[in-house]
Amino acid sequence: MDCFKVTILGCGSAKPTLRHSPTAQIVNFRGNLFMVDCGEGVQIGLARNRVPFGRIGHILLSHLHGDHCLGLVGFISTLGLGQRTGEIVIHAQEDAERIFQPLFDYFCPNLSMKVTFQSFDPQQSEVIYEDDSLLIKTIPLHHRVPTAGFLFQEKPRDRHLLIEKCEELGIPFAYFRGIKKGNDWTHPQTGEVFANEVLTSEATPSKSYAFCSDTMYAESIVPIIKGCDLLYHEATYGDADKVKAYQRGHSTSVEAATIARKAEVGRLVIGHYSSQIMMSEQEESLLSEAQAVFPNTMLGKEQMVIDV
Amino acid sequence: MDCFKVTILGCGSAKPTLRHSPTAQIVNFRGNLFMVDCGEGVQIGLARNRVPFGRIGHILLSHLHGDHCLGLVGFISTLGLGQRTGEIVIHAQEDAERIFQPLFDYFCPNLSMKVTFQSFDPQQSEVIYEDDSLLIKTIPLHHRVPTAGFLFQEKPRDRHLLIEKCEELGIPFAYFRGIKKGNDWTHPQTGEVFANEVLTSEATPSKSYAFCSDTMYAESIVPIIKGCDLLYHEATYGDADKVKAYQRGHSTSVEAATIARKAEVGRLVIGHYSSQIMMSEQEESLLSEAQAVFPNTMLGKEQMVIDV
Repeated sequence: MDCFKVTILGCGSAKPTLRHSPTAQIVNFRGNLFMVDCGEGVQIGLARNRVPFGRIGHILLSHLHGDHCLGLVGFISTLGLGQRTGEIVIHAQEDAERIFQPLFDYFCPNLSMKVTFQSFDPQQSEVIYEDDSLLIKTIPLHHRVPTAGFLFQEKPRDRHLLIEKCEELGIPFAYFRGIKKGNDWTHPQTGEVFANEVLTSEATPSKSYAFCSDTMYAESIVPIIKGCDLLYHEATYGDADKVKAYQRGHSTSVEAATIARKAEVGRLVIGHYSSQIMMSEQEESLLSEAQAVFPNTMLGKEQMVIDV
Repeated sequence: MDCFKVTILGCGSAKPTLRHSPTAQIVNFRGNLFMVDCGEGVQIGLARNRVPFGRIGHILLSHLHGDHCLGLVGFISTLGLGQRTGEIVIHAQEDAERIFQPLFDYFCPNLSMKVTFQSFDPQQSEVIYEDDSLLIKTIPLHHRVPTAGFLFQEKPRDRHLLIEKCEELGIPFAYFRGIKKGNDWTHPQTGEVFANEVLTSEATPSKSYAFCSDTMYAESIVPIIKGCDLLYHEATYGDADKVKAYQRGHSTSVEAATIARKAEVGRLVIGHYSSQIMMSEQEESLLSEAQAVFPNTMLGKEQMVIDV
């Protein structure tokens, strides 16, 4: 019921390697599956993690570099083969429809489900999805092409009812929902007002997850992701390649960790490793550089499942 | 020098599985690499087989179903990252340029090499590539969309010089090339004519490889592939699914074997297994059904390298 987890299907960069696949993740929020980026080979990642393809209702594309979206046509095509029905919504910047719709028309004609594009402006933080319990906002990033990250924000949860107190006062059930939302309660006969704090205890804090790839070091994202429980931030290079990172619109692991520290996040996962990083020792070195700045950092890895 | 081998990078069908990747092969003819089909994930296959990406000069696409060509944009993009120069030629039916050129323009701008499309008519057998020692012809196939297979035909080799005989007759070196090609030799003083058969022995037979995927059972291909040394023929289904195969424009393994027998080929490799074939026992059953008709059959498998 309260499941909120992230599955990393790919955390490599532009060139697929035997170590890492291009970027793709699944965010499972209480059973609703959101795909974040859709690099080539995404279907293999889904199969490895036994993710039920058909339950993915939304695909969020951070930007239109091939390593973040070239798995899309094959994935939609496979959904079609599986006779998936209903609707699938692709959230992306406006070019996406112009680029992908002709491919769906050609490669996946007669789809059994409806595919809709919903465009966002990657230059500003906007809400792109909302339901009773979840909000997804874009995070403007700084890369070579228009790019946005995504903040998955659980809405504030209900306060916990102090059930014994409520029964003692003889509060009818019908008021419970309102009290959990924060209402006070007035006794109908005596007119006495019971403050909400007397009837409830603090709500379980709501959780949030921020996905930030691809981006150069950008402090402008700090206020948006402030205090989130989990941050995935790209760390294409090690500290020695700081200049290269800047020139290519990417970050080093130290920069990712600096953002995590400034935003006071709970945990940091890094990924989007350069294909030049070919050994686990090199990844360990990215990790230790980051941990020196923000200790609660871990290396992203394919098939990793993280509870937010 | 005389290398002629086929590397199977993918021999699955439309839906990628953990067992098989979508269709892609590399034909290495004396060091020149030809890619045959280019399904999603092809770069991983190339990396696993340590195929030098940069030496692939031609990409042949049998047809434009996604599982045979959706790896193309990522592959071209990676070649661009590697600063590959020169030219790469994509041989395909005419829709390919209209579909893929806009994707190259968007996802791989400023490529360091030239990418050229060369279209063929999949309805007739035509020569699409020729050099001093190799000829590639299309093989019209029968599938749901215009589809062609490819016949790689080594040109007739030179006859072997009987060097002792030539020396005994005092034939100057300058004539050797002509004699190897089949010329007789006339003694300049005596006018005596020495027939080529006296001066040479039979050439090593030239080899050929036929790639036939996707297709329903079609005897029309038999005269084109007659006597080839190696045939890759799709076998999407087992004999029990003969009707389904026909309806979907595919073949059973028995049908593949029947084509191999009628065409008197050397060896048959089957592939393009349905994603319903999920266990090695099921593949073994495809194999034994085929071997009952054409004993020299083998199961295609990723990373398999076959000497033609």
